[in-house]
Amino acid sequence: MPSRPAELDTLLAEHRDGMALPRGFYTSQEIYEHDIATYWNKSWIWVGHISQIPNPGDYFLFDYANESIIVVRDRDGEIHAHLNVCRHRGSRVCTEQSGNARTLVCPYHAWTYELTGKLRAGRAMGPDFDPTNWGLFPAQLRIFQGLIFVCASEDAPSIDDGLDKLAPLMAPFGTERMKIAHTANYPVPANWKLAVENYMECYHCAPSHLEYARSHTLKMPKDVETLTPALVKRSRAIGLPGEELYQSGIDTGVPGADFYYRRYPLYEGYETGSKTGAPLAPPLGDLTGCDGGATDFQIGLLNNILFYADHAVGYRFVPRGLQETDIQVIWMVRDDAEEGKDYDLDDLTWLWHVTSLDDERIIRFNQQGVNSRFFQPGPLAEMEWGIRSFYDGYLAMITR
Amino acid sequence: MPSRPAELDTLLAEHRDGMALPRGFYTSQEIYEHDIATYWNKSWIWVGHISQIPNPGDYFLFDYANESIIVVRDRDGEIHAHLNVCRHRGSRVCTEQSGNARTLVCPYHAWTYELTGKLRAGRAMGPDFDPTNWGLFPAQLRIFQGLIFVCASEDAPSIDDGLDKLAPLMAPFGTERMKIAHTANYPVPANWKLAVENYMECYHCAPSHLEYARSHTLKMPKDVETLTPALVKRSRAIGLPGEELYQSGIDTGVPGADFYYRRYPLYEGYETGSKTGAPLAPPLGDLTGCDGGATDFQIGLLNNILFYADHAVGYRFVPRGLQETDIQVIWMVRDDAEEGKDYDLDDLTWLWHVTSLDDERIIRFNQQGVNSRFFQPGPLAEMEWGIRSFYDGYLAMITR
Amino acid sequence: MPSRPAELDTLLAEHRDGMALPRGFYTSQEIYEHDIATYWNKSWIWVGHISQIPNPGDYFLFDYANESIIVVRDRDGEIHAHLNVCRHRGSRVCTEQSGNARTLVCPYHAWTYELTGKLRAGRAMGPDFDPTNWGLFPAQLRIFQGLIFVCASEDAPSIDDGLDKLAPLMAPFGTERMKIAHTANYPVPANWKLAVENYMECYHCAPSHLEYARSHTLKMPKDVETLTPALVKRSRAIGLPGEELYQSGIDTGVPGADFYYRRYPLYEGYETGSKTGAPLAPPLGDLTGCDGGATDFQIGLLNNILFYADHAVGYRFVPRGLQETDIQVIWMVRDDAEEGKDYDLDDLTWLWHVTSLDDERIIRFNQQGVNSRFFQPGPLAEMEWGIRSFYDGYLAMITR
Repeated sequence: MPSRPAELDTLLAEHRDGMALPRGFYTSQEIYEHDIATYWNKSWIWVGHISQIPNPGDYFLFDYANESIIVVRDRDGEIHAHLNVCRHRGSRVCTEQSGNARTLVCPYHAWTYELTGKLRAGRAMGPDFDPTNWGLFPAQLRIFQGLIFVCASEDAPSIDDGLDKLAPLMAPFGTERMKIAHTANYPVPANWKLAVENYMECYHCAPSHLEYARSHTLKMPKDVETLTPALVKRSRAIGLPGEELYQSGIDTGVPGADFYYRRYPLYEGYETGSKTGAPLAPPLGDLTGCDGGATDFQIGLLNNILFYADHAVGYRFVPRGLQETDIQVIWMVRDDAEEGKDYDLDDLTWLWHVTSLDDERIIRFNQQGVNSRFFQPGPLAEMEWGIRSFYDGYLAMITR
Repeated sequence: MPSRPAELDTLLAEHRDGMALPRGFYTSQEIYEHDIATYWNKSWIWVGHISQIPNPGDYFLFDYANESIIVVRDRDGEIHAHLNVCRHRGSRVCTEQSGNARTLVCPYHAWTYELTGKLRAGRAMGPDFDPTNWGLFPAQLRIFQGLIFVCASEDAPSIDDGLDKLAPLMAPFGTERMKIAHTANYPVPANWKLAVENYMECYHCAPSHLEYARSHTLKMPKDVETLTPALVKRSRAIGLPGEELYQSGIDTGVPGADFYYRRYPLYEGYETGSKTGAPLAPPLGDLTGCDGGATDFQIGLLNNILFYADHAVGYRFVPRGLQETDIQVIWMVRDDAEEGKDYDLDDLTWLWHVTSLDDERIIRFNQQGVNSRFFQPGPLAEMEWGIRSFYDGYLAMITR
Repeated sequence: MPSRPAELDTLLAEHRDGMALPRGFYTSQEIYEHDIATYWNKSWIWVGHISQIPNPGDYFLFDYANESIIVVRDRDGEIHAHLNVCRHRGSRVCTEQSGNARTLVCPYHAWTYELTGKLRAGRAMGPDFDPTNWGLFPAQLRIFQGLIFVCASEDAPSIDDGLDKLAPLMAPFGTERMKIAHTANYPVPANWKLAVENYMECYHCAPSHLEYARSHTLKMPKDVETLTPALVKRSRAIGLPGEELYQSGIDTGVPGADFYYRRYPLYEGYETGSKTGAPLAPPLGDLTGCDGGATDFQIGLLNNILFYADHAVGYRFVPRGLQETDIQVIWMVRDDAEEGKDYDLDDLTWLWHVTSLDDERIIRFNQQGVNSRFFQPGPLAEMEWGIRSFYDGYLAMITR
């Protein structure tokens, strides 16, 4: 149980509802460590897709802060998540970002673990040593329609009820039949929360994102309202339900168990999030075409994926240090789509590549200004309601 | 109001008058943060010259530690200084080091400020939002004969009386009719105080600065004394008064309000601080020639400019981190002097370029030694009286 | 006297005998600073060999953490060790890693010290200044058969009795008649203790070091036992005694005063630690040939040298920061051996170069895993007894 930094109480007392968080939340090493211990290590994190590890022995790593998690498919086809820390003297066990292994062998003293995490044997550990006590620490794991979520600690927030509600809404996208077409990394010298906040609001979209703002209505709540009824019809026509889901973990008493599903319209002429407006890839799952809409999909407050009818774009904001964050962007298409034939990678990634470059820049400027001793948190706009939700969930989790 | 670190009291108790400061002053992150909060943010800093922003909308930034200040000329020609921190969520507002702007627009959510700092409007902030409460925080500003000084915080030390005393002494240099010919930056991995201390004494000049010591007498107090009477005559002949001014902020009860003006002789054969001894540029202001002297000019303890009769060299020691400092050197000439015709840039900058390279090296070695746990502060020489003054002012300001 | 960090008591309470140390020992900046103050500054460190400074005025520096020590031969031929910190304002006095000097002159203000450390004069320090009070701080010094050991602080552990016991065992190697053939540096992003621990056990040798494990028996205690009697005969035949010495500083009540001398067998076909098994250089000292053995020689817990019959390989693990350590490897041969004729440098350094590359990698992985908040110290194997000794000595010294 990590101890609560004294500084936290001061900062909480300074915080005013409806305002940005006080400076220390973004500048204190102690608060950062506390964030990792109480928020990241106890949150569900979307780490990948089942298509990355189709065969027995396939594995990949997901790293954040000082943590590393092994996601591996065992010989019976079951997927497991383990902490990537040898139980002997703590070495990383897997040292490649992905691969295929028959067993997981620590490179230091060759302690050998089954793919299930069980320690096979502790070499030369003497007769009193019982390997059953020394398996890899398990991480929690949930697979939702092919999307893999892990939580490093034992007390992961319960999300099963929420996933049940999301299931019918998401089913038409056929996410288990997707593949990752491209992953890009945009490192930004800023606290992870400033990167998350940036994603949580579209108040900045009009001034900061010319390309996105041209096609997406979120920057203009009035337009969303006006154009939604027509979208609902188009969505239903291609096989998507018109419902929405917004269930806050705070409201249900389970911080970290947030669920969000909402489809919003693109402007006329845009069938998907592309430069020209034309589709970029074959329709996902069971969909029969492009509806000119985009679904904001969220589980917890860290895991965000944007679903067009023909592709999806996932966003992760991975802490590497107090003011070092990797913005990871993951483009996904139908698993049978062939690059060069069914989709062009440059076209597919264009919008969210240029948008991420913009975001890197403004998040960096945001951190620079927040680092000033003269920074005072200002008032949030109504369009920044997503930041309020993030604050509510975040503050609940770090003060439990 | 920043809280006073416990470590500070221990260090103060360790400090002996007439000795160097204890190690912690140069190695503690807490003390460094306290320095910024209590010393830098409450000191006048010389940031530039009016010639840098001749037209309405012209601006430049001055950055130190985590702070950034916008110096901008408004449409009525008046100069303002603002904290470069958006009042919404804290982004830097200006992101280029200099430029021209009609308004100051935050790159994040387009909050738009007048050049005077007033918030023009908060886009989509709702009917209850009153923009008059959310202008940029002002920094304090003083313009002395064209030299721009700012202080980030509201309670800047009062310097107006001192400036009045300096005015007649400085008038002949015509500093409002100067321009910046060149600026160079010498980063040194050392605490800012070691860089300031280096500038405050000429005890090191003979062993460390061969080129400077050849032409400047400060390294040898006896020579200063012997050669000064002849200099006074020469100075008067070109239009400079023979007076001196030394008013310590400690003595007048206003720490940070120090004023120093003293002209000292160069050795025979040196009309100015040049390699050959020959003048480097046309005489400044109303002067009629070169007198073979140099004026040490100081306001506060951070702002030092050396005035020869034909050019001036300003020095700034800008903290970037606990043991990261930028030595900024600014060469100035008469505003109508043309490079290549009236002055040669390599010749102009030669002396203080080689001298700054020397200083970078010895300040670096100084920090390395001070980092040792076996370092014990030693006795200051009489020639290091300027360091004592610096300590007095510094300690008074950080313990207020 | 450095104050004891509160965190240390928590960590000590967490530590279980026979287990790896808790995470904080490898991740806390406070513990690192405490390590330097209580362990490194009070330990004997092997810094070099007399052959590096044969002539009066010859000197070299040894640096670790923020410390620097000057080892210098004075005009009478006597060797001294001084703290490399000027007594005036703390500058490094010597700034080259090695050289020859008539006096030690501080580059800042030219305070000038005799090679004995005595301050010759304090330039312009006034009539009341007594230079005899301001000599360089001395470090402790011991020269054992040509090997130079220093201890930065005054209260160095007493090692003279132990050195007397080691003397007859080591005498045949003629270490005073050696020279350094090559030094290599392998920086590893890990706490210094993880590097020391790596050297202290051969449990990792079989899985991590293919080349070493082919020729050296330490990875297999049973083989050591079986092959030792034959080695003892061969060793005696070339002039080496068959005795061993293991005296723990903990057992004798003098933490830091450990002495270890033990010769172990190589596998058949290996006369020395070479790729082919053939000798690499002329026999050391008075030895008459190669015996196919290797001596682990240790003074304190930081100083380890491996003596084959024809060359020696020293290892140092030099802290540079909390998780920055230099692995320094020093190859030594007989002083009259000529490179290119009597030994080939690539052949000489091959084994411990490839072995050090392996070690860098696994120590790095070890630190990465230990940085995880989920790391729990695991049980040490019997083959890791050397780590237990290291922990005993280390914990005794840092809690004195």
